[in-house]
Amino acid sequence: MHPIAENISKIDLFKPLSFNSIENIIKSGDNIIKNFEKKEPILFRTEPVDDLMVLIFGEVVTEMSDFNGKVMQVERIKSPSLLAPGFVFASKNISPVDIISDEKTTILYISKSQILKYCNENQDFLKSLLEVISKKVIFLSQKLYFNSMKSIKEKIIFYLMQLYNQQGKTYEIILPVSIEEMSHIFGVARPSLSREFLKLEECGIIKKEGNKILLLNKNELYF
Amino acid sequence: MHPIAENISKIDLFKPLSFNSIENIIKSGDNIIKNFEKKEPILFRTEPVDDLMVLIFGEVVTEMSDFNGKVMQVERIKSPSLLAPGFVFASKNISPVDIISDEKTTILYISKSQILKYCNENQDFLKSLLEVISKKVIFLSQKLYFNSMKSIKEKIIFYLMQLYNQQGKTYEIILPVSIEEMSHIFGVARPSLSREFLKLEECGIIKKEGNKILLLNKNELYF
Repeated sequence: MHPIAENISKIDLFKPLSFNSIENIIKSGDNIIKNFEKKEPILFRTEPVDDLMVLIFGEVVTEMSDFNGKVMQVERIKSPSLLAPGFVFASKNISPVDIISDEKTTILYISKSQILKYCNENQDFLKSLLEVISKKVIFLSQKLYFNSMKSIKEKIIFYLMQLYNQQGKTYEIILPVSIEEMSHIFGVARPSLSREFLKLEECGIIKKEGNKILLLNKNELYF
Repeated sequence: MHPIAENISKIDLFKPLSFNSIENIIKSGDNIIKNFEKKEPILFRTEPVDDLMVLIFGEVVTEMSDFNGKVMQVERIKSPSLLAPGFVFASKNISPVDIISDEKTTILYISKSQILKYCNENQDFLKSLLEVISKKVIFLSQKLYFNSMKSIKEKIIFYLMQLYNQQGKTYEIILPVSIEEMSHIFGVARPSLSREFLKLEECGIIKKEGNKILLLNKNELYF
């Protein structure tokens, strides 16, 4: 398979499409592939996001700056991945961040009308698109919620209690995400999160075995 | 027109549909209309959101509680409106909140498969659905961003500077949202926000005329 097609097929959104359809996306004259050198701007803040941007090769960072010009890095995104999928279909589709390549980068631009065409042709693609955008809603809702909590310990305990309730109140909880993803939801650094998990283990409150968490002392988890 | 159909037609998502199509949604045996008394639970936290819930009449509140049972109200939603549209199509579509009627309430449940059917039949409805969910992504992204700022003054100034950049760097800015909506984005109480706007006016930094803001002293706005 063409290496571009291969990378596209790894992205959740495109999983319902056949290899043939994916190769047609690349060949279609309506979609554009652009290459960027390291540290080249891909999209400026305040620019509209009119196409679905698919990061095929390379890595980008998203940045904001305050009015004194101080730049803050918001996120690092590795290929293959979608860039800002939640913005394309919004009426106010203005990017809140600059997107800058952090190494040699290849991006496929698929126009809104093409995306809608794929939705009409393939109901599974439509479901996949709705799922991708909805996943962003859930991620941001959770993040906003955990943001309101002060300590990492508080975040972990609340998260475990949510899972405890969702997973039928069993004392053996399966973590649905990796520690890495959890650190993104909580908005904390990954090592700090791992450290806090270790502390909870040392206190005998939980035991972590891979993606499984045993609640050893549920009374301690009430706060 | 039927009063239920009339209220549905006021919701952005359904605007691309003809009155006829809306009346068919109500008549369809696949969709269900339920009535709730005041203070009746509509959806429990940890329950999946399998249908699109359309709040036709009445008012609901969404609530969370911590493990000591202390209840916090998250949001108050007035009819006509959609409830949790960003959750229906997510793979982990578990409601993070309880939804409770705050007066006599009528809700229309439209199944996922019906929604997908309407998307296939009407491309404008599909666009409208993508827009509704994407709008949530933008709202939450903004809210998360403004959450990281400490003072209300800082939030207002940053917001105005964003608009200044987006609206072609003119000293006369049009507010795209009401003060009410802005208070939701900022996550602050509406009276506190109005008070802070007044203070900025008293200091001669801005002048507010309806939805127009004049930047009188842009140097003061850098922080």
